[in-house]
Amino acid sequence: MSKVDLILKNATIVTMDDAYRVFPKGAVAIRGDSVLDVGEEKQILTDHTASKTLDCEGKALIPGLINAHTHAAMNLVRGLADDRRLDVWLLGYVMPVEREFVSPDLVRLGTKIACAEMIRSGTTCFADMYYFEHAVAEAAAEAGLRAVCSQTVLKFPAPDAPSFEDALEAGREFIQKWKDHELIVPAIAPHAAYTSTVEILRACIELALEFDVPLLTHIAETEQEVKEWRETYDMPVVPWVKKLGLLETKLLAAHCVHIDDGEIHTLQHAGAGVAHNPSSNMKLASGFAPVRDMLETGVNVGLGTDGTASNNDLDMFEEMRLATFLAKGTTGDPTAVPARMVFAMATRLGAKALHLGHLTGSIEKGKRADLALVDLDTLHNWPHFDRDPEAIYSRLVYAAKSTDVSDVMVNGRWLMRDRKLLTLEEEPLMQEAQEFARQVDSFLTEREGSVLSKLVAIGGAEQEESYEVQIKVRIPDPAPIIEKLESEAFEIVRRAHYREYDCYFAFADPSQGRLRRREDEFVDDQGRVFNVRYRLTLTGPAAERMYDNSVLLSRSRFIAPATHSLRFYKEYFEPEATVTINKDRLRWLVHHAGEEFFINIDQILMPKLDGWFLEVKSRTWSRRDAERKAELISTVLKILEVDVSQAVTEEYPELIQP
Amino acid sequence: MSKVDLILKNATIVTMDDAYRVFPKGAVAIRGDSVLDVGEEKQILTDHTASKTLDCEGKALIPGLINAHTHAAMNLVRGLADDRRLDVWLLGYVMPVEREFVSPDLVRLGTKIACAEMIRSGTTCFADMYYFEHAVAEAAAEAGLRAVCSQTVLKFPAPDAPSFEDALEAGREFIQKWKDHELIVPAIAPHAAYTSTVEILRACIELALEFDVPLLTHIAETEQEVKEWRETYDMPVVPWVKKLGLLETKLLAAHCVHIDDGEIHTLQHAGAGVAHNPSSNMKLASGFAPVRDMLETGVNVGLGTDGTASNNDLDMFEEMRLATFLAKGTTGDPTAVPARMVFAMATRLGAKALHLGHLTGSIEKGKRADLALVDLDTLHNWPHFDRDPEAIYSRLVYAAKSTDVSDVMVNGRWLMRDRKLLTLEEEPLMQEAQEFARQVDSFLTEREGSVLSKLVAIGGAEQEESYEVQIKVRIPDPAPIIEKLESEAFEIVRRAHYREYDCYFAFADPSQGRLRRREDEFVDDQGRVFNVRYRLTLTGPAAERMYDNSVLLSRSRFIAPATHSLRFYKEYFEPEATVTINKDRLRWLVHHAGEEFFINIDQILMPKLDGWFLEVKSRTWSRRDAERKAELISTVLKILEVDVSQAVTEEYPELIQP
Repeated sequence: MSKVDLILKNATIVTMDDAYRVFPKGAVAIRGDSVLDVGEEKQILTDHTASKTLDCEGKALIPGLINAHTHAAMNLVRGLADDRRLDVWLLGYVMPVEREFVSPDLVRLGTKIACAEMIRSGTTCFADMYYFEHAVAEAAAEAGLRAVCSQTVLKFPAPDAPSFEDALEAGREFIQKWKDHELIVPAIAPHAAYTSTVEILRACIELALEFDVPLLTHIAETEQEVKEWRETYDMPVVPWVKKLGLLETKLLAAHCVHIDDGEIHTLQHAGAGVAHNPSSNMKLASGFAPVRDMLETGVNVGLGTDGTASNNDLDMFEEMRLATFLAKGTTGDPTAVPARMVFAMATRLGAKALHLGHLTGSIEKGKRADLALVDLDTLHNWPHFDRDPEAIYSRLVYAAKSTDVSDVMVNGRWLMRDRKLLTLEEEPLMQEAQEFARQVDSFLTEREGSVLSKLVAIGGAEQEESYEVQIKVRIPDPAPIIEKLESEAFEIVRRAHYREYDCYFAFADPSQGRLRRREDEFVDDQGRVFNVRYRLTLTGPAAERMYDNSVLLSRSRFIAPATHSLRFYKEYFEPEATVTINKDRLRWLVHHAGEEFFINIDQILMPKLDGWFLEVKSRTWSRRDAERKAELISTVLKILEVDVSQAVTEEYPELIQP
Repeated sequence: MSKVDLILKNATIVTMDDAYRVFPKGAVAIRGDSVLDVGEEKQILTDHTASKTLDCEGKALIPGLINAHTHAAMNLVRGLADDRRLDVWLLGYVMPVEREFVSPDLVRLGTKIACAEMIRSGTTCFADMYYFEHAVAEAAAEAGLRAVCSQTVLKFPAPDAPSFEDALEAGREFIQKWKDHELIVPAIAPHAAYTSTVEILRACIELALEFDVPLLTHIAETEQEVKEWRETYDMPVVPWVKKLGLLETKLLAAHCVHIDDGEIHTLQHAGAGVAHNPSSNMKLASGFAPVRDMLETGVNVGLGTDGTASNNDLDMFEEMRLATFLAKGTTGDPTAVPARMVFAMATRLGAKALHLGHLTGSIEKGKRADLALVDLDTLHNWPHFDRDPEAIYSRLVYAAKSTDVSDVMVNGRWLMRDRKLLTLEEEPLMQEAQEFARQVDSFLTEREGSVLSKLVAIGGAEQEESYEVQIKVRIPDPAPIIEKLESEAFEIVRRAHYREYDCYFAFADPSQGRLRRREDEFVDDQGRVFNVRYRLTLTGPAAERMYDNSVLLSRSRFIAPATHSLRFYKEYFEPEATVTINKDRLRWLVHHAGEEFFINIDQILMPKLDGWFLEVKSRTWSRRDAERKAELISTVLKILEVDVSQAVTEEYPELIQP
């Protein structure tokens, strides 16, 4: 007869051990942070005496759920911008807000709220990847949850690291500081292959091996990623990262949506963990992960919620239900990934995926006491057919709700009793979070009010502001002008020939200016395309127009490389109307009277306009200079012998849609 | 200034009217059973005085949710047998239990529990299809819910109708009795095209038109159904039922998973309602309904949970979330069926699908007061970004839980206040339900314990019990035996030649006997297959064996036509092992000495066995007769000049697996 601290008795115990033992009237003996014994109630009460005994009538005692992939702090951006494409959502909303607001304090706040939500829904352990990960670790440890916390490394500047070297250094310090913590397992997280360089991945692998800590990353979340990898490296992502040595680490790969049989075997062989995120994959339409195949091959597939920004909650009960539904729906087999298997994904397999299988994920002698009590005597989970003890899995997966969780223990410590949180105070956290949301709302409201702010917000923008002076003249024949251009009156700096595919975005408020997405195909002497350039140009409304013998137009201009698709920009900027114009352009950069002029001869191909247009432009920062350049443009036009009476003041979108 | 009964104020009102108006600080004025006014709180409080005013701070006031397809009473079989194929689940479990147990009292009990679950999760109206539908109507009316209740008509005998004429008569009486009820809309439900005859469908259409009531049916739930229709009628299901006039009724078609563009347009044109059931379709792996296409075409698509037997709950919040996730996942477009649209499916569009759009589905002047209050100030739905009023839809669909519903009103009457049900007592209902579950468990335990009971349970079985007397002898050459058989010693009644594809199921308990699924291909003189027969044979363990100069084996036999697939029987009977044997059989039914004998000459083709086997068999009900026949078999063997020392006592499965 041994003395223990606590006996939980009279529960349906779902051990999730390798034999999937279920004790319909069972008990668990807990000493310190660990499970000392589990079995039939009678046996446990015979073999042990406890200082405290808890009767769990009508409840299932389950291993605490393992959330195998999340970004806990992102709880603060739940519902920020839904029903948008991944790129618009991420680059247009989440990342700008993160750049503006993310700090250790904010990460701490978001993580605490996430911990509260996780405890309430029966989660006792989670794998996290974010910025300022030390703040995540602090918050999780304070809340009493077990967590694998991984410091993100990106090739771009991040909110917590101006360069990847800084991120790596922060990661090393973080790992050193936390590596012996009883609840927190520090880790390193090169965000994804496509956001890393080979150098970054190699450094992360070394760090993970040096300290024997997990390495977390996103793999093959979208089809696009795999397509790029095949095009660039002639192989999909898994073999590519394998070549670098990534599979020699304790790998936890999130998503693995677009992986093939060979990659599944590679992951299994390496003992890698996979985090399947059904809600996120469906909400962002990333695709359907081959979960049944992975499980049948023996991969340790856990279940993750991903961040609430793409979910929008941390409810592992919903995730379980969705995982089995999705597996059945996509395989066409209603017996695929049955309830017991999906419950294993959320517990034992999840723990293995996090490389914590020796500590948690099942109720077994010697493992940590990470547990949850679930009330199954509820109307929405009634009646109970008891002839088959396995029906408990069906009840837990197909009908139980996260709100049926009444009590949660981690490491032998109660975090929730009778639905009351013991380590976190929700009310002040919620007030702080709402204050943050108000700030974000102001930030976004201001930004949404200005196309320029939105352009700046998506980053990578060269804020190249300038005034433009220009004249546009309709000409019957370009040949005589080209002949004169190539004469000695002008010093030709550069010549170019391209086809310009322009899409103009117009906004309801004309003071917002007009945004143009340009795709320029550069054409060589033989008419072959040898280069393509994508740019965004935001032109403010014309500030002044002067009608002398020439046309002077001055306005502000901002230029940014257009690295995303036209579709992206349409959804992000939400223009009221768009106009598409294709033209053939001959372009000269010339010097005349010591000044730089751009001279274009344009032919509008689509929609078809007769004749050609000559444009003469110059740029400046000064209004006075602009006036001088306007005069010089008149001179240029005279040299070119252009009939200025044919000048047009409209821009191309107005010319084609008068 | 008008006097009203109740004003609900200080709520975020999501009207779901055609303009999708949202009042962030709104109020609703209710008089009697209807909404008298809705708008900004200030305006409502100015225009009306109320006997009672309720402050709804922090809550969303939404139209009550519409469950467009369910079988409420089936709440009693929730979790009865999960993770099985549709046929095994339906024919092997649900229908046998229904045949055994369904009564008006049971339907009333199941419906009441379902109503409690629906009220708790914010549902105010549901479309039901089941047996003893008057009991469903009574229970729903007592609970205070609005419902379209449809009496099922099947071509088979049903628990409440020995023939379809009885079902139709019951339907007529039901409709007459309930047609003017303030909450219940009676309807008729030919279950599906494939379970109806043309006569049944015509009669249902006439009935629906005569009383101007809805007609509910299942359409194109599985690919198999559509395949059969195309093969048999050269068209899919929708045009076929259209030809019969089904689309002239107020049609509500459940599922519509496998319908094409033409059918979508037909449904839209007819003003038919469609009930989309994402959980059920995924859990049963029925396929992915073209929901976005239907919505874009303008079909009134509502959302249904289907019965809890295939869900396993009546949670419309889960259904909403799943519907948008599924639409996004299957179209590959994360903007597909956004939150607002899916919320419309659960409210306004659902009401229209039920042909109740004039009464419910939105909070509008003149419509019935069918409402729910949802607590959105919850940790799992926090923080709130308020810059976009439309974010309320995202909050309701992506993060709210059914347990966030606090209050529900139908027809101006509160059914739940502060999470307390006012029209139903849950505790006694749950006790009654558990008593039923115990009975079902006993019934199934007994049945599961006996292969014979399972065979009988799936119906259609001919319980042809008999004793068999037989000898089997290995022969080197069939020719001399055939020659003698065709001599005058025997009167040949029938000759047959077939290839027999046998699958034997062995069970852990040998006393259960052995089940064989036979597929016999009858072959004509030219070796062409002209007929195929599928049968199940259950042979009990040998009761006696006598080794005289012949072998006498007596045992019980049960035969049933095998109308399902081999896969079905394997999953249903769950044999411990299976053995497959293919043989070529020449068979004679002969008379000798006034008795009937079957004589088989078998060649075992797969797995290959050398030589041939001669079997001489006879059947009887009497043991004494069996002994006499054993003697006669010896005589027959002598006439055939067979070497009896080559007799084998093993049956074929033992012969090939010694």
